[in-house]
Amino acid sequence: MREKNVFVVILAGGSGERFWPLSRKARPKQFLALVGNRTMLQHTVDRLAGLVDSQRTFIITGRAYLELTKSQVPQVPEENIIAEPVSRNTAAAVGLAAELLTRQCPGDVMVVLPADHYIADVARFQAVLRAAIAAARDGQWAVTIGITPTRPETGYGYIRRGELHNVFMGVPAYRALRFTEKPNLKQAREFLATGEYLWNSGMFIWRIDLIRQLIAQFLPELHEGLRQLAGVHDGQLPAAMEAVYPQLPDISVDYGIMERAANVLVLPGDFGWDDVGSWPALEGYRENDGRGNVLEGRGVLMDTRNTLVYAPHKVVATLGVENLIIADAGDSLLVCHKERAQEIKRLLAELRAAGFSEVL
Amino acid sequence: MREKNVFVVILAGGSGERFWPLSRKARPKQFLALVGNRTMLQHTVDRLAGLVDSQRTFIITGRAYLELTKSQVPQVPEENIIAEPVSRNTAAAVGLAAELLTRQCPGDVMVVLPADHYIADVARFQAVLRAAIAAARDGQWAVTIGITPTRPETGYGYIRRGELHNVFMGVPAYRALRFTEKPNLKQAREFLATGEYLWNSGMFIWRIDLIRQLIAQFLPELHEGLRQLAGVHDGQLPAAMEAVYPQLPDISVDYGIMERAANVLVLPGDFGWDDVGSWPALEGYRENDGRGNVLEGRGVLMDTRNTLVYAPHKVVATLGVENLIIADAGDSLLVCHKERAQEIKRLLAELRAAGFSEVL
Repeated sequence: MREKNVFVVILAGGSGERFWPLSRKARPKQFLALVGNRTMLQHTVDRLAGLVDSQRTFIITGRAYLELTKSQVPQVPEENIIAEPVSRNTAAAVGLAAELLTRQCPGDVMVVLPADHYIADVARFQAVLRAAIAAARDGQWAVTIGITPTRPETGYGYIRRGELHNVFMGVPAYRALRFTEKPNLKQAREFLATGEYLWNSGMFIWRIDLIRQLIAQFLPELHEGLRQLAGVHDGQLPAAMEAVYPQLPDISVDYGIMERAANVLVLPGDFGWDDVGSWPALEGYRENDGRGNVLEGRGVLMDTRNTLVYAPHKVVATLGVENLIIADAGDSLLVCHKERAQEIKRLLAELRAAGFSEVL
Repeated sequence: MREKNVFVVILAGGSGERFWPLSRKARPKQFLALVGNRTMLQHTVDRLAGLVDSQRTFIITGRAYLELTKSQVPQVPEENIIAEPVSRNTAAAVGLAAELLTRQCPGDVMVVLPADHYIADVARFQAVLRAAIAAARDGQWAVTIGITPTRPETGYGYIRRGELHNVFMGVPAYRALRFTEKPNLKQAREFLATGEYLWNSGMFIWRIDLIRQLIAQFLPELHEGLRQLAGVHDGQLPAAMEAVYPQLPDISVDYGIMERAANVLVLPGDFGWDDVGSWPALEGYRENDGRGNVLEGRGVLMDTRNTLVYAPHKVVATLGVENLIIADAGDSLLVCHKERAQEIKRLLAELRAAGFSEVL
């Protein structure tokens, strides 16, 4: 059964570089079919089926991705796809959505979802999200979903949960004590050992009037900026955003609001979540040849171990190598030691400095 | 000054696989610009300038390479480029050339040169070749050039020299005692220590009547086969070769003749010779970035050492890798540990077995 009086806002403005050369400025991660045959954005919309109508699904993306977004999710009405003229982090995108939606139904619930995460168990995801919506209904609580951690991951932020506040539809809702940045390995192990930490999923559920009030309280500059869009008609919106957006503060929802707000609840999500943040993360979702190799494409991997090959359009032959990421994108080729995958951003900075922006 | 009464026969029928994916069935090593901007075949013809007229230069190649050969060396008359219908090793190619040239001048000297070797000092090469021609003039000696070895190379055959026979134009000519196959490293070191071994260059210099007589003596089957081409006019030659060639024995000049003949001379060649037999061999001829990397193409090699990148048509980025050969050919890509480069033939056999013949 569809949830009533709920909007979904999908944040699809990211410009992730970590899947270069597959991901590009012109086609970041959320628009790639990294897992399965549908793109991350398509999966994000798909998994709302039965929960929220597409007519009540909004997508905030960058201007450069507007057409790509429309073509990937034709079931979402074009007028629900909003293009930011410049990128201003998640608080601005969420605030913009709240500003636009408050015109319709200020007392409705807004569900904020990143466009580029993987979720294994969609039924469980929907169940937890329904519980979070229930927790947000009374307009007192900023609700988030914290992922039950399965390993001491250093690539994610963590949320420390406090006392149990209530149970919604069988899902416990805890007071959120603290949002922490990405820990080092020692800290991550300690977090895991306490049993009190959850991964920060970037999913937020709150009433529209509440998030507007929190922005006014903690991010007054953003609030003032967005107020300039209040009376603007749809047709004039792009021009008004062009004027307003560059002035907005560049800050995330996590730092700008969640860390500062008092009334935050976190519901544990145990639905097989992954932000698929780098090439090595893909391996879990691909068939492996028994020697740790994943081959997306065609070819022969001879005396090769623990190597990921992404080259859908050519024949690849490897011989005597291990622990590599090999990714081909036609005009460009990456060969990277697997343990260095987190440094691809630094590599791209060097490519930019060397004058190769045309392949970034 | 040009040598009189001398023919040159360039053997350009090889189907080397060791530069895959750059070298292909349709474009083997001799047709590639591995060193400098001219192909190995072009260099081979170029370095005869002033020594032998192009009108007296012949090229034996495979039928599949006939047009490629004509286009690469337009200075060689088309009628001097002979296409073998099937590949039958060097003895057949040399015998065929002798059979065709004997019609013109049976007492002339024939110089046999591989089409795919590198020579650094062309003036010295010409001087040694002139000496070898002088040694062959009286028709008593099958002459070869042995390269003065500079390292215990296990990729080449060796020739053991015996007593000094004579000195031609300042170049000593020794009796050749023995031709040996590729040695192991221990043997190669011993060979080098004696000072009596030279690398087998595959260059042969003899009078046409002498090589015909040696073929009749040691390879009677080849002799009989070639006799069927004796009275054939040029126009009928391709058809006659089509009938004769498949019957010819598949044996090299080295094993079939040089190892067995008594009157063999070897002249040391000290002109900077290399057969450029594999990807790692290329490195000596390319600029290196100070960390042992060679980049043929454009890109950024970050925290990368001792790696050869051949990808002229794309931007390559490497991160945290070492001792690799990375070679891109548009439809196919090789990533190989440098120490495994000798096994590329085995890799290609696997590619063939896996159904990827279209990129071989």
